[in-house]
Amino acid sequence: MKVIRYPERNSWQELIQRPELELSDLETQVEEIIERVSREGDQAVLEYTRRFDGVELNSLEVSKEEIRASSSRVDRSLKDAIDEAHGNIRAFHSSQIQSSKPVETGKGITCWQKLVPVQGVGLYIPGGSAPLFSTVLMLGVPAKLAGCPSVVLCTPPDSEGNIPPSILYVARLLGLDRVFRVGGAQAIAALACGTETIPRVDKIFGPGNQYVTMAKQVVSRDRVAIDMPAGPSELAVLADEGSDPAYVASDLLSQAEHGPDSQVILVTGAEELIHQVEAQLDIQLAGLPRKDVATRALKQSRAILLKDEREMVDFINLYAPEHLSIVTRNYHRLSEQILHAGSVFLGPYTPESAGDYASGTNHTLPTNGWARVYSGVNMDSFYKKITFQEISREGLAGLGKTIMSMAEAEELIAHSNAVAIRLKPPGDE
Amino acid sequence: MKVIRYPERNSWQELIQRPELELSDLETQVEEIIERVSREGDQAVLEYTRRFDGVELNSLEVSKEEIRASSSRVDRSLKDAIDEAHGNIRAFHSSQIQSSKPVETGKGITCWQKLVPVQGVGLYIPGGSAPLFSTVLMLGVPAKLAGCPSVVLCTPPDSEGNIPPSILYVARLLGLDRVFRVGGAQAIAALACGTETIPRVDKIFGPGNQYVTMAKQVVSRDRVAIDMPAGPSELAVLADEGSDPAYVASDLLSQAEHGPDSQVILVTGAEELIHQVEAQLDIQLAGLPRKDVATRALKQSRAILLKDEREMVDFINLYAPEHLSIVTRNYHRLSEQILHAGSVFLGPYTPESAGDYASGTNHTLPTNGWARVYSGVNMDSFYKKITFQEISREGLAGLGKTIMSMAEAEELIAHSNAVAIRLKPPGDE
Repeated sequence: MKVIRYPERNSWQELIQRPELELSDLETQVEEIIERVSREGDQAVLEYTRRFDGVELNSLEVSKEEIRASSSRVDRSLKDAIDEAHGNIRAFHSSQIQSSKPVETGKGITCWQKLVPVQGVGLYIPGGSAPLFSTVLMLGVPAKLAGCPSVVLCTPPDSEGNIPPSILYVARLLGLDRVFRVGGAQAIAALACGTETIPRVDKIFGPGNQYVTMAKQVVSRDRVAIDMPAGPSELAVLADEGSDPAYVASDLLSQAEHGPDSQVILVTGAEELIHQVEAQLDIQLAGLPRKDVATRALKQSRAILLKDEREMVDFINLYAPEHLSIVTRNYHRLSEQILHAGSVFLGPYTPESAGDYASGTNHTLPTNGWARVYSGVNMDSFYKKITFQEISREGLAGLGKTIMSMAEAEELIAHSNAVAIRLKPPGDE
Repeated sequence: MKVIRYPERNSWQELIQRPELELSDLETQVEEIIERVSREGDQAVLEYTRRFDGVELNSLEVSKEEIRASSSRVDRSLKDAIDEAHGNIRAFHSSQIQSSKPVETGKGITCWQKLVPVQGVGLYIPGGSAPLFSTVLMLGVPAKLAGCPSVVLCTPPDSEGNIPPSILYVARLLGLDRVFRVGGAQAIAALACGTETIPRVDKIFGPGNQYVTMAKQVVSRDRVAIDMPAGPSELAVLADEGSDPAYVASDLLSQAEHGPDSQVILVTGAEELIHQVEAQLDIQLAGLPRKDVATRALKQSRAILLKDEREMVDFINLYAPEHLSIVTRNYHRLSEQILHAGSVFLGPYTPESAGDYASGTNHTLPTNGWARVYSGVNMDSFYKKITFQEISREGLAGLGKTIMSMAEAEELIAHSNAVAIRLKPPGDE
């Protein structure tokens, strides 16, 4: 880690920079994929799958039978773990379900909101060395709790055209409607445009590589909504001289192993702790299968030594990390001052990996400073709110003058007439 | 209006098309403005104001004194109207304020959401022939209710450099922090990038012309959040033979007068009603100051005759109108089937203009079919939710096996280690 001692405030902006994602080169390429999928449907999807995944598919959709059979290919112990995580995620997300009651804003004027679940939801689960079934839980549980009537999943096939059994197992556990063996920009294009086989959805959720990220960005301009802008994962740890350096190092490493572009930042007022954490990083790194990835991520990560709590809190709020771990002695008090973070982990026994998998909170969170203004995925992500209003004749008689006066001041006379015509005495036409 | 009798379902997709907004030509132009404002700050803003608004400004900010003085330049009757609307908007939006309680998802595992107001809010109010002070109410009331610590407003100056007193009056009534006499893409650029005078905000709200719309779209890619994608305003009216044709015509006209690209659609099963509404449109149009605008909007608008209620509801849900007026006899029953609309107006005495100004609901709503997945502006628009969690040692002992089992199945061993290291017996290092 690069150690930065007592940086001046005017240099902080530079310290919070994320690695630049150079996506603009991809834009033309991805736009072409979207254009072809929108025009040629399944045929284009199959061809891109041949080209990018190196597999000739017989069918885009995973059969019910294949999904059912997945259960026997997942270990009992993993199923038990998934069940417990499922229960916790469900409990936390259920607690977020809102209701809305009519409000009489004035006599005879009733207004209310109606929560309507997003009708077509598309989940994207990336491929890669290991199956990210935990993301199926994180996106599928709230989608089903919200009552979204169609929830489909796209994930890339392996070279044999297969999907990992753990992903199919979770899809079945949650009752997702359909699963398609399609990945990359072509999957996002299919969900946004619809093909003969893959239904067009209203909102696309889920992480992915730079092609997927770019494709989500492009289709969100004019076709569908997306969960949030995506970037490499991040963790900031706020620690003091009482923090356990072994625990801190283990959290930094669990972030660093995600990818070489993962962002890891240690913020503290205790210089000695930085050295202890560095020593622990060396010890713990040695045994990791993803040692190379973590080492590369740590190379561009930073330990920042600051002079007091005020500076530490201000720095974190400027950085707006996706994950924030607070392991100082006074973590409760510090946590109250946090304004910008995706998800916050408090105290010595709350590793970030708990929230990644099983405590109940969602792990789909805003990166790249977007925590300043976006929330992570939560129940709100799967609803929209329609406003309704009903006014009685008496209600309009009471409110009419106000509406007309304002409409006239904005020179919108038809707006005023729509009230006047309703308040005319009967027969006065 | 163009009358379309009993269209086949496979032709509906064409009937719901909105006028194409050709924005791509503007993109380069707007990107240049943003780039210059980000580089040169106030100087660039002043120059664009000279060029586009034809006025040489002494100061970008409207002085406190000027804001205070606005009060004496607004009629008492308009002030009373604004006060009543303010009260209703406040009442409805207050009712939406949520709270969040900690949830113990498992023994020793506590998770909660914290609602944090968006810290920097920028409101954009377009210029034009009449001052849109009602939009200041619609955006400013929830921003202040949410407790957003900085709420600033940009609106273009007239040729003398002045801002309409009604806009300043509402800004003062709501306690907005600062008002700037800047419009167009340069205003959006200033809010997104910050200048010496205008603070950088986290989220930009408000309508505008095509330059403003394009600028909001561009800055939302990598700089700030925006309220929602924007397009020309829309109204669909669902009516039957019992509906009053004069009322229906008055609502259609109040939508049509917004602009020549406004969308107006009448959906009904009653052919006779269409003729009656057309006759009423002719009568009512005659007296309108904005007759030309409304006539142009009506030329491309449609009356669609459908064969039954099922078709009517399905058509509306496919169209997903910004505003929907239901004036059939059974409007309650029909309203329950509406899945996609921004704001719905029920029964004969609920003109759309009530919601535009004073009933309490918000008038900033999704257009162009985005009501399929976006909500209008509401209290949620001014908050983000951060998740927090705290796990006790016992809690982690209980949940640890689950986290480790899932992390190992995803081949993320450092994630598993972060649990294992915390559960080691003391002294076992």
